[in-house]
Amino acid sequence: MNNPFFKNHGPFKIADLIDSDTSHSSSVSDLTKVNELLYDVKNLNEATSRDVTFFHSVKYKDLAIKTNAFICITKKDFFDLLPDSCIKISCDNVLLLTAMITAKFYPDSIIDYNNYDLSNISEKFKDIIHGKNTLVGNNVIIGENTKIGHNTTIESGVKIGKNCHIGSNVILRNSIIEDNVHILDGAVVGKKGFGFIPRNSKNIRYPHVGYVHIKKNSEIGCGSTIDRGSLSVTIIGENTFIDNQVHIAHNVKIGNNCIIAGQVGIAGSTTLGNNVMIGGQAGISGHLKIGNNVQIGGGSGVIKNIPDNTKVMGYPAQDFRNFIKEAR
Amino acid sequence: MNNPFFKNHGPFKIADLIDSDTSHSSSVSDLTKVNELLYDVKNLNEATSRDVTFFHSVKYKDLAIKTNAFICITKKDFFDLLPDSCIKISCDNVLLLTAMITAKFYPDSIIDYNNYDLSNISEKFKDIIHGKNTLVGNNVIIGENTKIGHNTTIESGVKIGKNCHIGSNVILRNSIIEDNVHILDGAVVGKKGFGFIPRNSKNIRYPHVGYVHIKKNSEIGCGSTIDRGSLSVTIIGENTFIDNQVHIAHNVKIGNNCIIAGQVGIAGSTTLGNNVMIGGQAGISGHLKIGNNVQIGGGSGVIKNIPDNTKVMGYPAQDFRNFIKEAR
Amino acid sequence: MNNPFFKNHGPFKIADLIDSDTSHSSSVSDLTKVNELLYDVKNLNEATSRDVTFFHSVKYKDLAIKTNAFICITKKDFFDLLPDSCIKISCDNVLLLTAMITAKFYPDSIIDYNNYDLSNISEKFKDIIHGKNTLVGNNVIIGENTKIGHNTTIESGVKIGKNCHIGSNVILRNSIIEDNVHILDGAVVGKKGFGFIPRNSKNIRYPHVGYVHIKKNSEIGCGSTIDRGSLSVTIIGENTFIDNQVHIAHNVKIGNNCIIAGQVGIAGSTTLGNNVMIGGQAGISGHLKIGNNVQIGGGSGVIKNIPDNTKVMGYPAQDFRNFIKEAR
Repeated sequence: MNNPFFKNHGPFKIADLIDSDTSHSSSVSDLTKVNELLYDVKNLNEATSRDVTFFHSVKYKDLAIKTNAFICITKKDFFDLLPDSCIKISCDNVLLLTAMITAKFYPDSIIDYNNYDLSNISEKFKDIIHGKNTLVGNNVIIGENTKIGHNTTIESGVKIGKNCHIGSNVILRNSIIEDNVHILDGAVVGKKGFGFIPRNSKNIRYPHVGYVHIKKNSEIGCGSTIDRGSLSVTIIGENTFIDNQVHIAHNVKIGNNCIIAGQVGIAGSTTLGNNVMIGGQAGISGHLKIGNNVQIGGGSGVIKNIPDNTKVMGYPAQDFRNFIKEAR
Repeated sequence: MNNPFFKNHGPFKIADLIDSDTSHSSSVSDLTKVNELLYDVKNLNEATSRDVTFFHSVKYKDLAIKTNAFICITKKDFFDLLPDSCIKISCDNVLLLTAMITAKFYPDSIIDYNNYDLSNISEKFKDIIHGKNTLVGNNVIIGENTKIGHNTTIESGVKIGKNCHIGSNVILRNSIIEDNVHILDGAVVGKKGFGFIPRNSKNIRYPHVGYVHIKKNSEIGCGSTIDRGSLSVTIIGENTFIDNQVHIAHNVKIGNNCIIAGQVGIAGSTTLGNNVMIGGQAGISGHLKIGNNVQIGGGSGVIKNIPDNTKVMGYPAQDFRNFIKEAR
Repeated sequence: MNNPFFKNHGPFKIADLIDSDTSHSSSVSDLTKVNELLYDVKNLNEATSRDVTFFHSVKYKDLAIKTNAFICITKKDFFDLLPDSCIKISCDNVLLLTAMITAKFYPDSIIDYNNYDLSNISEKFKDIIHGKNTLVGNNVIIGENTKIGHNTTIESGVKIGKNCHIGSNVILRNSIIEDNVHILDGAVVGKKGFGFIPRNSKNIRYPHVGYVHIKKNSEIGCGSTIDRGSLSVTIIGENTFIDNQVHIAHNVKIGNNCIIAGQVGIAGSTTLGNNVMIGGQAGISGHLKIGNNVQIGGGSGVIKNIPDNTKVMGYPAQDFRNFIKEAR
């Protein structure tokens, strides 16, 4: 799939991408290929034979061995965990080199400068009911019978389905919103995630080339923030209701029919199944897998995977009955 | 009391309300009355002999036995817990039928479409000091010497007292605000609560026909959200100060002289007494009763009632001295 | 240093300041000086021989004995903890009298009335790239190549460096922002802190005459709130990145190269060293000292000082290894 929001400045020769990394001693496993072209940077499971990918943690070894990527940025120790056909680039800091290569493909994805050329919605959409000072960018699509409140800005390329209700003071960018979605006042959807390579005196921001996909019949509460993915998509499933002041970090994927109460926070790259219920102020660490039909009590701190059909509470979260027993 | 913000589309005949619920096997205890008129839907303790109420949890049995409601939606098992004079409707899902009946009385209370016909404040109020792009709806009342910031929207029917200070980017709807109240930048007051009947593929939103009442001399911090009640009022007591990023859910009632620090969350229908102090990030579960002069330490998770004059901390919250002892 | 944001209405004679406190039985240790002039009110360590300071907690005795203040508001018991040369004023409620005196010097610092005379940025800055409805106050400075989004308000006296990115719906006041700082959508920087003297029926707001200083290369996330100091400055160090929905209270001082994840809260007057990493939703109590290179796990509640090079987690926060051991 072409990236719907960011222009791909590729293709680039492998040699040119590696050259861009002058600060690292990277080495390529098959030097005969360094003049071939790379067309995109993608995750292990999404990369094709024209793309570069990266593999930085043994946690992803099951995806690594099956990758179709033409080339993979990784550590020397991980070479054996990748297919023979995949060209390996070893380097000291996998995420840093990946960030630099991604930045070369998608330079506009690093900093969320606002669109400064927004128009008043009435100039572009005659039939949409809207408030005052409602602003839209280029190539925005808004479905029929969708209503949009005051002082809301919808940046370029955002797609909004039919029968949606977008509140006031909302900011939407890099987002695809299906039919019948409600986004309440002050929510910010689609900004870049909180990802960067820490460096003393000047961190290196990780490019976020993904977007946010909110499926039909969902609701996002007031003041909630939903960050877009780095290389993948942040997904809010169908009929999932999210309360006020919730934070959903980059790459999070939430299933259908979930209920997420106020002030919950979900860290980056965590996935939730369907029918998950989360009480107020609960927090879920990053890179976790929460199963289907899971219930997480209010205030919980979840720091490991949770299997299907489980009810947990506490910090760290434990079996709900144990929590209640200890609470007595 | 008439509802100050939502038009009551009643009265309706009992038979018409029940008929609207075709998906449930509801039965009426006294079929001779089904052609009588109902004028409003109210809580157990507020319903009069012209109103319908509901009773879904044994927790409310003390209110149930004293209700003056003409008719009550409940479970068969609870019939004996209601006055003889009260007509009972039994059904599978009390909250669902109540939601459907409430929606019939107050169809405009389900979705918070913004007022799309706001005017610049200077068109309606000559003497109010205000910022740029300050918008007001119809029938708004603003007391003398009140000041209002930039990009703030005040929707129809909102009443603001004298000597108030309303910041910038604030959204007020369905709210009655007494004198000398300060509402700081970015707060959202009066939106519908996070209440709905979960249904796979499409949840049913619960109508929120209540409002928010902020009493005199209070302060609401930046980015805080205060949701209006479902059938009752969300109340912030006199001289109660609330810090930034606090979430107060629907039907919560907070007493006078309370101090609520940043990022606290209070779930639906909980009540707080007077002189309650709550440290930052503490959370309080729903439907609880917090007494007078209670102190709740920062970060606490309160999951049961707390009696007067008690100091608690921890998750779950416990006696403060025990928390400190265990912390050593 | 002169206060960059609030007009100092002094000097005042000592006698006039004490007289303003009719409700307290204050007494002055050296009555021969009551007609001398005081020029400012400052913290113990910043006060000069022309200033008044205050000393209300034994916690600050190391600063007290070294103060250069001309006069100090304190309790009778603390007289011996102050230099002989310092004139002492004893009173029942040190903070109350300090607040009243500060209010006399800086009456405009008590309530954050918005600037109601903002101009559209294009009237004052020809070369700044900006959105729609971007508003600026008087004496604002904006460095070259800084970009500012839609519906953002920048109140009088704010200084913004070069190459900054300020998002949409941002509110800046009483702030000094260095070069290359990013402030994302909906952040509120520089409002008064949540400080007041609790009084039944009408709290007395503490004046906040400080400001916020954000050093170069830093980032502030969406919807975050950073309050200005009461008498001192709230500082965000160089290259410190703060995620969404974080709350930084008044007088907090954060070092360089810190990473603060979403929904963290830091209470008033706490200081953080350099290279501190804080996981999502963690909370830190007020008046604490967090060392250099400290790591605080997500969801933690920190209630005591943390030495350099320490990793903690839990509520209350403890050694990280113990937390993990107990979690098993």
